[in-house]
Amino acid sequence: MDPKVVLDTMWVLITAMLVFFMNLGFAMVEAGFARAKNCVNILSKNFIVFAVSSLGFLLLGWGFMFGDGSPFIGLKGLWFLTGLDNSPATGEAYKGVYSAMSWTGVPLLAKFFFQLVFAGTAATIVSGAVAERIKYKSFIFFSFAMTMFIYPIVGHWIWGGGWLAKLGMYDFAGSTVVHSIGGWAALAGVIMLGPRFGKYNGGGGINPIPGHNLSIATIGTFVLWLGWFGFNPGSTMAADPNAISHVVVTTNIAAAIAVLSSTILSWILLGKPDLGMTLNGCLAGLVAITAGCAYVSVGSSIIIGLIAGILVVLAVIGFDRLKLDDPVGALSVHLVNGVFGTICVGLFAQDGITGTATGNGLFFGGGTKLLMAQLAGVLSCAVYVFLSSLIFWAIIKATMGLRVGLHEEIEGLDIGEHGNSAYPEFLIRKPSYTFLGIKQK
Amino acid sequence: MDPKVVLDTMWVLITAMLVFFMNLGFAMVEAGFARAKNCVNILSKNFIVFAVSSLGFLLLGWGFMFGDGSPFIGLKGLWFLTGLDNSPATGEAYKGVYSAMSWTGVPLLAKFFFQLVFAGTAATIVSGAVAERIKYKSFIFFSFAMTMFIYPIVGHWIWGGGWLAKLGMYDFAGSTVVHSIGGWAALAGVIMLGPRFGKYNGGGGINPIPGHNLSIATIGTFVLWLGWFGFNPGSTMAADPNAISHVVVTTNIAAAIAVLSSTILSWILLGKPDLGMTLNGCLAGLVAITAGCAYVSVGSSIIIGLIAGILVVLAVIGFDRLKLDDPVGALSVHLVNGVFGTICVGLFAQDGITGTATGNGLFFGGGTKLLMAQLAGVLSCAVYVFLSSLIFWAIIKATMGLRVGLHEEIEGLDIGEHGNSAYPEFLIRKPSYTFLGIKQK
Amino acid sequence: MDPKVVLDTMWVLITAMLVFFMNLGFAMVEAGFARAKNCVNILSKNFIVFAVSSLGFLLLGWGFMFGDGSPFIGLKGLWFLTGLDNSPATGEAYKGVYSAMSWTGVPLLAKFFFQLVFAGTAATIVSGAVAERIKYKSFIFFSFAMTMFIYPIVGHWIWGGGWLAKLGMYDFAGSTVVHSIGGWAALAGVIMLGPRFGKYNGGGGINPIPGHNLSIATIGTFVLWLGWFGFNPGSTMAADPNAISHVVVTTNIAAAIAVLSSTILSWILLGKPDLGMTLNGCLAGLVAITAGCAYVSVGSSIIIGLIAGILVVLAVIGFDRLKLDDPVGALSVHLVNGVFGTICVGLFAQDGITGTATGNGLFFGGGTKLLMAQLAGVLSCAVYVFLSSLIFWAIIKATMGLRVGLHEEIEGLDIGEHGNSAYPEFLIRKPSYTFLGIKQK
Repeated sequence: MDPKVVLDTMWVLITAMLVFFMNLGFAMVEAGFARAKNCVNILSKNFIVFAVSSLGFLLLGWGFMFGDGSPFIGLKGLWFLTGLDNSPATGEAYKGVYSAMSWTGVPLLAKFFFQLVFAGTAATIVSGAVAERIKYKSFIFFSFAMTMFIYPIVGHWIWGGGWLAKLGMYDFAGSTVVHSIGGWAALAGVIMLGPRFGKYNGGGGINPIPGHNLSIATIGTFVLWLGWFGFNPGSTMAADPNAISHVVVTTNIAAAIAVLSSTILSWILLGKPDLGMTLNGCLAGLVAITAGCAYVSVGSSIIIGLIAGILVVLAVIGFDRLKLDDPVGALSVHLVNGVFGTICVGLFAQDGITGTATGNGLFFGGGTKLLMAQLAGVLSCAVYVFLSSLIFWAIIKATMGLRVGLHEEIEGLDIGEHGNSAYPEFLIRKPSYTFLGIKQK
Repeated sequence: MDPKVVLDTMWVLITAMLVFFMNLGFAMVEAGFARAKNCVNILSKNFIVFAVSSLGFLLLGWGFMFGDGSPFIGLKGLWFLTGLDNSPATGEAYKGVYSAMSWTGVPLLAKFFFQLVFAGTAATIVSGAVAERIKYKSFIFFSFAMTMFIYPIVGHWIWGGGWLAKLGMYDFAGSTVVHSIGGWAALAGVIMLGPRFGKYNGGGGINPIPGHNLSIATIGTFVLWLGWFGFNPGSTMAADPNAISHVVVTTNIAAAIAVLSSTILSWILLGKPDLGMTLNGCLAGLVAITAGCAYVSVGSSIIIGLIAGILVVLAVIGFDRLKLDDPVGALSVHLVNGVFGTICVGLFAQDGITGTATGNGLFFGGGTKLLMAQLAGVLSCAVYVFLSSLIFWAIIKATMGLRVGLHEEIEGLDIGEHGNSAYPEFLIRKPSYTFLGIKQK
Repeated sequence: MDPKVVLDTMWVLITAMLVFFMNLGFAMVEAGFARAKNCVNILSKNFIVFAVSSLGFLLLGWGFMFGDGSPFIGLKGLWFLTGLDNSPATGEAYKGVYSAMSWTGVPLLAKFFFQLVFAGTAATIVSGAVAERIKYKSFIFFSFAMTMFIYPIVGHWIWGGGWLAKLGMYDFAGSTVVHSIGGWAALAGVIMLGPRFGKYNGGGGINPIPGHNLSIATIGTFVLWLGWFGFNPGSTMAADPNAISHVVVTTNIAAAIAVLSSTILSWILLGKPDLGMTLNGCLAGLVAITAGCAYVSVGSSIIIGLIAGILVVLAVIGFDRLKLDDPVGALSVHLVNGVFGTICVGLFAQDGITGTATGNGLFFGGGTKLLMAQLAGVLSCAVYVFLSSLIFWAIIKATMGLRVGLHEEIEGLDIGEHGNSAYPEFLIRKPSYTFLGIKQK
């Protein structure tokens, strides 16, 4: 076997494993930022979502995303990866129906696994935003929709050789394809569900609902940071030493600087350095650098990280003012910074910095050509994902319902949905206040 | 150095590290599924077991398992890997006493480390089943016996070129060698120890004893799922792109489908989707695909995972009815699905699907030849491991005792065995009920 | 691209990711061993320290450490890695200002990232020793000093081609460069800060302050053990199959034996096997083998681990008698065993055992030459790091203060420094005793 195929396959599989591990990260961030009474529910959602994604993406998602077809959707080799494919052959030598992936010289199942863990990430982003009030069953159904219909179609546009790819939009590891897509779907869910009981008072007041376990939230964020070293450098899908080294460093620096800027801004705005803001700052930096990690310099990654850390703090405050209740800050992290990161490619890209001919961004003398393509991508994906998600959420609402009953929500979804408790032996403080005349436990 | 040796060594070492990490997974699953009062004890057992395994397997286990010798036991190069060996030379070029491992072209110490982490896994499987009542010291002694005598001898039969290998039994990554072996040893321990105080009432009632921390149990299960991407694909012991890609996908799909089937079945049988069943379903799918991950198709892995998820739910209920008290479900996961997975090779194997000439299984036109070899392996290992474990448990019982005193068990092993508490500042609810006239704390 | 460059880059980046992950390990060990009321503060410190390190090491640390210059400090290519460099060219072909790193054939950014995660480790070691009383801001400033001035200068002496390297001192993966350096800086901080309120009574009594969460402390230790498989084998900075296999095994065996020896000794001395001692025993073995993992045999690693496990138990007891209050045992682990491990190279080294011409140590017929070089390294680094740390601590104390107020310390730093609580819903026991007439919460 050609050593290059071996090397590339090892790289793709190992980085995919790191991305898989991000499921643990998301589970702990979301569980830690939510209340103890909903912990089993959140753990269950975050655990099953990757199983759902595995089935959904195998069944149909992969085919819609990477099958040859129209500029809008894959049409060949749809079911269960059963299309013709002679991977790891590449370029001219490739014969098969998944030609959008023929640039990477690894076996088909390695391609599939790498793309599957990305699909799973897009689906799991939704879970945090809709936490603490969505029915378990309804979340499962939406996750199937996400990995079979919503995510793969947008993915086809950008990574599957579709119309946005042809337009010259660049999204290296998925600030749009994964993160803002997850974010738009989550936003639709947040709107459809409404805020958690007790979050917003009638009089415009906002009740902070602190997370129940910042130790596990910190575990989760570190695991996500690690996982991003699979997410971004792995998206080379080839063990190119210069590119992967570059991407590791831009990824890390953006995260680090965003940690600092979000901490400092929260220190200034809130009076104390809030750990939740620090952790979300890290994730914001990671999301923002994802689109451009291979296209921008280390210096630019500092600026991108700096702004990302500021954006996430302002967005958390802003969404709360808009009464868009997102228990874990998923919209601020994935939607806002996914959009921001995608636009940054149009601003900071340097042609061929790791080998890809993106052209230069606005700040490097490339004019607005790349920037316009990026904006077109951001907008078209926003429209498609937000609307299609609304439709799926509406179908679910009409058929099985979206939200648990008020009594169940107050008592906690762990008892209502799972008949269980995450910490049955620990004494848990029941916050006792009334809201609209109903006593909150 | 030949690039193939470098590639294979990197693959073997990195996947071995992932398997090492499974120790954390087991520790958290077992601690999370047990009570807070025994948490230090479980963490201690799961931490020290890999240290014990490292010493025991270095001292003698490796030699018994992979030393040249009789079809039943290794006899050369027994102590401290001191036998002649010119690895990474392979095949004809190999000169040494560990010829059963001469098919893989990596240095001796890489082979040793990879096999050591497997031995450690077999030993740690026992710890969950005997939890909450076994003396710390007694568990340590059994772990030495496990990694020096019980595991290596069966391992020699199948992976050390012994009589089962010659018979044509196939167990790619150890559904039998690691998992059912761990399971049989655990079953012997469960029988010798008896159930936990308060688990079964005199009148046939079963008291559910919920785990104290499902957050860490979920951490553990995700870590095990990740670790399995070392366990199964690493068992190629060579970076063969097609084989490792195939194994990653069959492993993941079986796990994912088992998550779904166990969740749905528990939803139907218990009325709610139980997170414990979901997590154990995942592990069941992983155990079941372990023997066949390189021999069966992705389609077959769906069926294997589907059945594994069902089996584990039924087994958990069944063992409880048999009053075999297994606090974490280790028997249902590792024993039942280890046996099931080994048999599946005889049913679903497709000759040469990733290069190994297993012959076809029953469902692919191969008749019962392979199935019979698999059954012979299952039965002979069951008899040897169960009986030899019983003997070791009996020796330990006769010399130092197996079980802590009733007062210590009620108070918790953390105080009695370790003089410590896992969460000394948290207020813990003491369940207060009487059993046989004694007040349970 | 030369396959060797690809292989080495993959190895360096993947092992660096494992070392990065050690940040999670340190965070959980330190948080778990401290009290719940300071948990957010510890998590915050351990999270931000790697962000600070990333900026500080990029800004200046890398240049001081690896820039060409005098035997005492790097002087070229100081700022932001902007020096000339044609990596991955090596040896004669290398043209650039970072020639101390020209022996490894990977891209500059891969070298940077690998060295960055080591710098981050040195900085994070300090955090545990100064926990539960240091101001958040003050810790952040010291971390900048550590990664920009203290660590890189000593690092230059040993790894940057400076005077200790020329003297023939060997420290393969950093028992001195990382661990004892972190330890000396921590010791200076512990002395400057003084003990925690309530730790030592006026009459010579020592109040044990148990950690609040041994589950996460165990998670942390397992993660550190895993991370060390990056730390030590990665320090080859090349995928040399024999060397990396050797280092993996010596690392693991030293850790395993130290787990056993620390557990047994604590069992003898304290009457029960203390989990804290077991976990710190593991870390002690890992620190002690770090300097010599590539220079000593597997047999020697057993002896080194055995002694390390004993040393850590005695040191924990000894530092307490000296009233040096180190909440997590960082001095016993990193300082004592960092020094011990560095000296072990002078005793146990076997010339060329994995290819490096260290000469033999005292016990292998090499006389005292190597031992003297090691001692010179230990002493000179001790003097420089301890004094320069004292100066930085003093500057911080004089400008912004080092320690939180007594009221804040008693109430917990989480409220005072962060306005937050790690577990707001859990009922936490307030230990209630008086000290010097003040009621301790």
